[in-house]
Amino acid sequence: MYIDCLIQIKTDIETSPESMNQNKYNTVSLIRKKRDGKELDEEEIHYLVDNYTRDSLADYQMSAFLMAAFLQGLTDAESAALTRSMLHSGVVVDLSDIPGKKVDKHSTGGVGDKLSLILAPIVASCGVPVPMISGRGLGHTGGTLDKLESIPGFTVDVTLGRYREILEKHNLVLAGQTDEIAPADKRLYALRDVTATVESIPLIAGSIMSKKLAEGIDALVLDVKYGSGAFMSNHNEAVKLAQALVGIGEEFGKQTIAYLTDMDQPLGFAVGNWLEVREGIACLRGDGPDDVMEISHLLAGTMIYLGEHAKSVEEGVEKSKQAVEDGSAWNKWIDIVKEQGGDAGVIENPEIYNEAEYLHEIVADQNGYIHAMDAYEIGMVSLELGAGRRTKEDIIDPAAGIILKRKTGDEIKKGETIARFYTNNSEVLDNAERKFINAISISGIKPTERKLISHMVDKNGVQLYNR
Amino acid sequence: MYIDCLIQIKTDIETSPESMNQNKYNTVSLIRKKRDGKELDEEEIHYLVDNYTRDSLADYQMSAFLMAAFLQGLTDAESAALTRSMLHSGVVVDLSDIPGKKVDKHSTGGVGDKLSLILAPIVASCGVPVPMISGRGLGHTGGTLDKLESIPGFTVDVTLGRYREILEKHNLVLAGQTDEIAPADKRLYALRDVTATVESIPLIAGSIMSKKLAEGIDALVLDVKYGSGAFMSNHNEAVKLAQALVGIGEEFGKQTIAYLTDMDQPLGFAVGNWLEVREGIACLRGDGPDDVMEISHLLAGTMIYLGEHAKSVEEGVEKSKQAVEDGSAWNKWIDIVKEQGGDAGVIENPEIYNEAEYLHEIVADQNGYIHAMDAYEIGMVSLELGAGRRTKEDIIDPAAGIILKRKTGDEIKKGETIARFYTNNSEVLDNAERKFINAISISGIKPTERKLISHMVDKNGVQLYNR
Repeated sequence: MYIDCLIQIKTDIETSPESMNQNKYNTVSLIRKKRDGKELDEEEIHYLVDNYTRDSLADYQMSAFLMAAFLQGLTDAESAALTRSMLHSGVVVDLSDIPGKKVDKHSTGGVGDKLSLILAPIVASCGVPVPMISGRGLGHTGGTLDKLESIPGFTVDVTLGRYREILEKHNLVLAGQTDEIAPADKRLYALRDVTATVESIPLIAGSIMSKKLAEGIDALVLDVKYGSGAFMSNHNEAVKLAQALVGIGEEFGKQTIAYLTDMDQPLGFAVGNWLEVREGIACLRGDGPDDVMEISHLLAGTMIYLGEHAKSVEEGVEKSKQAVEDGSAWNKWIDIVKEQGGDAGVIENPEIYNEAEYLHEIVADQNGYIHAMDAYEIGMVSLELGAGRRTKEDIIDPAAGIILKRKTGDEIKKGETIARFYTNNSEVLDNAERKFINAISISGIKPTERKLISHMVDKNGVQLYNR
Repeated sequence: MYIDCLIQIKTDIETSPESMNQNKYNTVSLIRKKRDGKELDEEEIHYLVDNYTRDSLADYQMSAFLMAAFLQGLTDAESAALTRSMLHSGVVVDLSDIPGKKVDKHSTGGVGDKLSLILAPIVASCGVPVPMISGRGLGHTGGTLDKLESIPGFTVDVTLGRYREILEKHNLVLAGQTDEIAPADKRLYALRDVTATVESIPLIAGSIMSKKLAEGIDALVLDVKYGSGAFMSNHNEAVKLAQALVGIGEEFGKQTIAYLTDMDQPLGFAVGNWLEVREGIACLRGDGPDDVMEISHLLAGTMIYLGEHAKSVEEGVEKSKQAVEDGSAWNKWIDIVKEQGGDAGVIENPEIYNEAEYLHEIVADQNGYIHAMDAYEIGMVSLELGAGRRTKEDIIDPAAGIILKRKTGDEIKKGETIARFYTNNSEVLDNAERKFINAISISGIKPTERKLISHMVDKNGVQLYNR
């Protein structure tokens, strides 16, 4: 007899993609290899990614491979090979003819995270070229591009020629990611998104690094967040992600340093695009919130160190503080806003910005301490007010968002304001308020303080951060 | 900032299948649930299978789910739910108005496995209705349909009306599987075939049982093979598959008994479609090889017992032997061949059959004992001679195949014939001979005898077979 199922071959899946592949490997065997927990070599990984990108490997085969990789893991070598394949699926910018070590920063995303707006001008003003390519926000997290575009006139769509030109002129360029960068990653991510294969550390690390390595950088600083508003809420997982990112960076010969930073409550007081730019302006003018400034200076200082404009991170941090104090960071910021078409008038005088129509105060219904602020939920409230997007197609209201008046650990009295909502859509206010109140817990006991920066990860391993 | 990859949503995968689904469940959440090792309930499994069959769930989502199921396993309840969903994706034949308990047999496939041709007429002649729906062969294994079709005129394509009519008239019908039976299984199997998700016990068990349960049976006997020529070469895996199959059968209220039988060398002496029919004829005439007859009588006896025409399997086996001896099984065979359009003349006088053009003897190059015969390789040699198909589209030569002259444990002298090849394609002979010789090992030491039937599995568990 026979096994029934063996006779049922390809009905709807009529053309076997095999026939279209370069015939060196058999796709099913490669999927099976990963399924069985074995290691694929560089060429095998490249075969899969390359054929997938060229439409000669089917979505259903790639998704089976991704699920196998998700559950069986990828070795460091596989992860590097995956990154390399995705990186070389598109344009890799070569900035080697521009003098100096080019350094960028990448954050794994959070709520109220406007650090790029602050540290990029600081680092550039200290002489380190910063070729920064950013993305848009989705879900509870914001995106640097959306924040920049809340500045009237500011454009992030630049050609490669302009990208180099702006960088050479200002030591800084703030560009949006184009379709030419790591297209394989784009396709793979879209597939992962619909097949429950997103939350895999090697896949995430490969995705992030393939795009960052395409920018033409020499070194990279990573801000890996943990806590309720982070992509990886679990601290251990965040440490693993940081290690994976640093591993790939070093594998590609780029000095990479990562910090683990707290994202259990929003960073600073502002959440929402223009509101965060406004807070960034205050920071560059020397009037920023402590948490934002502490991380900004550490990341900027590390970038300055990696860019060889300081002999140590400590010296870099001092230079960073100096650049804010003496106004050079501010001047750099104004220069870049102007260069990229932004209205410098509104940056100089943020009070002239077209504010949201509806302002709504959220008040405390009891006395006590703010015990916790669920950053994820606050991000979602901000989205609801118009500051974020649920799907790629949603349109953002640049003026919408939240200004927090209290943060975790602060004392509050019944009737005092916890936060102010900004929106142009009054219909969402009731629901947003309900959600916001649920995201805040007030208690009679002062909560223990959380560390803002927990660990540093570099090629030598993980170290407790203690400065 | 943000996590870069989060902003890259659906590029080529433009229409999210979600929008087309019944909105009760979110496909990605269900994939994630299985990925994380959790159990899906009946409704959730049904949602996936049903939407997939109706084209409102994408191949790439189903393949990710299948890989997750492959690696995380399926519980008995999930396996039963999967079987039920696939079963009800097509026609489920209702034979309840036909008197008697309808019993069928299923084999997981092997080389030289002509048991259905023998036991079906035996069991039917003992008064138990046998509604048998079979498949075609693929790769090294043969298929009952191909064997039946090697009989000139024999047709396995019958309408449902004819199926019932033949069964009522003869207590037996030998039909081919139609597209109406378990179409979801057909699609899922095609997808598994190209995504390295075939070899999963719960998926295999669900696939087999969804088709068998559609036949309208009341009870089922399973021949689960292990050894070099079996789908599951590993004995432990075969036991697990038997348990999974029996579990599903009993879950559906069908009495199910499985035997674990040896497939380390071909069954009987004949491999190839007409050659196996001819050996089957010999068996029904009381002149069959011991191994074929031992398993045939055990399976037939168990079917007769389950069909309530014997009080025990032992009594069933006695009745089976009696049916061969007194010619009633033979008469049943002639009747069914005639009923289904076959040439009874060639069955009565098999020597008038149009034999293959090329006969080729393989002789031993040394003295010794046949130590092992790799059943898989022998199946592949038979395929090469024309008896099998590599892909569904290949055309079979009904006369091609192999007649073994020696089997494992037999003594042989240099120059004596081990086997005779039958083919109409002389070009393949050299290669087939080389392959065949590699598949046979001759040694000075007589090998220890393997047990033909190792275990019996029923609802009470696994028992050593010792009769």
